[in-house]
Amino acid sequence: MTIITLLTDFGLRDSYVAEVKGVLLTLAPGATLVDVSHDVPPGDVRAAHIVLSRVWHRFPAGTVHLAVVDPGVGTARRALAAAANDHFFVAPDNGILSFLPTGTQLVELPIGETASATFHGRDVFAPAAARLANGSPLSSLGREAPDPHRLALPEPHREGATWVGEVIYVDGFGTVVTNLRQDMLGNAGRLRIAGRDAGPLHRTFADVRRGELVAFTGSSGTIEIALRDGNAAKVLNVAVGATVKAVEPPLPPLPR
Amino acid sequence: MTIITLLTDFGLRDSYVAEVKGVLLTLAPGATLVDVSHDVPPGDVRAAHIVLSRVWHRFPAGTVHLAVVDPGVGTARRALAAAANDHFFVAPDNGILSFLPTGTQLVELPIGETASATFHGRDVFAPAAARLANGSPLSSLGREAPDPHRLALPEPHREGATWVGEVIYVDGFGTVVTNLRQDMLGNAGRLRIAGRDAGPLHRTFADVRRGELVAFTGSSGTIEIALRDGNAAKVLNVAVGATVKAVEPPLPPLPR
Amino acid sequence: MTIITLLTDFGLRDSYVAEVKGVLLTLAPGATLVDVSHDVPPGDVRAAHIVLSRVWHRFPAGTVHLAVVDPGVGTARRALAAAANDHFFVAPDNGILSFLPTGTQLVELPIGETASATFHGRDVFAPAAARLANGSPLSSLGREAPDPHRLALPEPHREGATWVGEVIYVDGFGTVVTNLRQDMLGNAGRLRIAGRDAGPLHRTFADVRRGELVAFTGSSGTIEIALRDGNAAKVLNVAVGATVKAVEPPLPPLPR
Repeated sequence: MTIITLLTDFGLRDSYVAEVKGVLLTLAPGATLVDVSHDVPPGDVRAAHIVLSRVWHRFPAGTVHLAVVDPGVGTARRALAAAANDHFFVAPDNGILSFLPTGTQLVELPIGETASATFHGRDVFAPAAARLANGSPLSSLGREAPDPHRLALPEPHREGATWVGEVIYVDGFGTVVTNLRQDMLGNAGRLRIAGRDAGPLHRTFADVRRGELVAFTGSSGTIEIALRDGNAAKVLNVAVGATVKAVEPPLPPLPR
Repeated sequence: MTIITLLTDFGLRDSYVAEVKGVLLTLAPGATLVDVSHDVPPGDVRAAHIVLSRVWHRFPAGTVHLAVVDPGVGTARRALAAAANDHFFVAPDNGILSFLPTGTQLVELPIGETASATFHGRDVFAPAAARLANGSPLSSLGREAPDPHRLALPEPHREGATWVGEVIYVDGFGTVVTNLRQDMLGNAGRLRIAGRDAGPLHRTFADVRRGELVAFTGSSGTIEIALRDGNAAKVLNVAVGATVKAVEPPLPPLPR
Repeated sequence: MTIITLLTDFGLRDSYVAEVKGVLLTLAPGATLVDVSHDVPPGDVRAAHIVLSRVWHRFPAGTVHLAVVDPGVGTARRALAAAANDHFFVAPDNGILSFLPTGTQLVELPIGETASATFHGRDVFAPAAARLANGSPLSSLGREAPDPHRLALPEPHREGATWVGEVIYVDGFGTVVTNLRQDMLGNAGRLRIAGRDAGPLHRTFADVRRGELVAFTGSSGTIEIALRDGNAAKVLNVAVGATVKAVEPPLPPLPR
């Protein structure tokens, strides 16, 4: 049966996620529901975008991805469904789908008159996801829509011999995900963050001693900085938006 | 296949939820398990009751709802199974099923001699839920039982031109769910909570500015008070049981 | 369809669990995925071992248990798959499978060249679990391996008329799980922990008054100490490793 993944900021304490699942299983009996996360920080569209961009392509073709982090519910923001690479996406038009390639097929979902003005996840997005899971063509769900709203995502820039990027995500282990890529480090480059030297690129955590910072290419392709057996974000006192630099030698010494 | 929903206060850190699921999938192979929540505050029967009352009717007919928030496990409190509106319910008799209509068909589940005295969720309720999922008639699960224990739920009352209700639930976003209904506000009424004016009824969050209180009819039919892009319960410093008033003009000014 | 259970310390906020599930459902379409827990404290192999040892045998024969608490990812620690009692297990060789009987059939999984050095859960263990779910024989997954690494688990010892054990787990309710067994208490023995008398063995919580300590044989067979309607671990200020004694009378009085 078709898989429907769910990504929300609803949390798992209240009734909201289960209300959505009840609608999905009523309208698409037998669908396989998979939680991506319901613990996106409330209203954090950028975090939701990063999580979904890492996940969707791990699922089989035909999967429907329902993503509802929707601080603008009830405003004029559009409700979207999209198809790309044989996957389907249903989400508010607030940037959560920024990872979709240009030219992705998009439709705008109508908001039914009986839809709660505060819970489109249940009353607008879930019914659309169920229809896609049942095999309805995307074009039958609404009228064609232009490109979605795209987040202004930070891009690294060059300052002399140094690439300057930033922290784009901090995971539950305190690992700091940056937007720097391996090729920006050169052959002998080192990472710098929060006034500290985070060393050269390593292969994995175990390449440094416990309690030391370790930089490596993360599982989604950009450089991440962790603390072996610890929480890098806490120790460095950094959050999303903090500056990270890839510097090439010679460079003055910094504390490790 | 039959759906079994699960609502507990077991949390997701320990083995308990999975032990229950193992029993369910052993006794009812192929059942579709859906978590409602496992993060009900420990022993909070009233919160569990509210969550389940919002959720069960979203699922298709035939669904079995297993709800185990059971501070009285091992006492003389009865173990129940019930059928109403083509849904089935399995739960301790402590008020968690207060939303069931009078006259609901009920049976008392026997407690097997080998059942752990501290884990009826696994040893009493899960096997009963599995049997219902497999199509066993309710009457085969135990002897007929009278009406379940019902929580004494607060009802709004009138004081002159004012309806006085209370906070019955606070969700994970900090939205305050009250027991007041739209008709109690009249045409020009305003909400009052914690010494503050929460304004007239709006349609959705976006009808006020960021950081302002917004009252609206929630997705389950009563009035809720949120803070746009914030946490109303924290800012108001209110919890379940706090007083909320629907006042009609003219009324003296209060800070917003 | 085959059940695959998942136990990790990945948390539910990030993309990691869903990345693993995407791989599982791509390689083993139709498998039933069941979360055991993703909230094991980061890197706490001993806690993961206890949770899994309580859970696996509740599932039907043929179930595949995927357990990834893997602080040594990318080091020389082996990746294992095992078969015991008609269940399958896939996990790093760090002690998480210590509960398996001696002589369990084990194979060492090869680490593919394209596997991320920081995410074997997705790139090594999930594909192996999917193959087992699809019916591949264990022997086809890797070369035979000797006994797994086993944790040095604490065993109670005798001091005169007293059995001295320790706290081996603290659950989400604050219930303290010990390694003492009922037979160590004798007929009139009492429990002692953190300088307090925890009383004789009772049957269930309700055998003491609210706010009192209650010792009972837990659902997995050893003695546990709870606080009725409260959090024993917090009130006693104990954690894993704390000493617990089973003392036989006569004994000097201690505060309850």
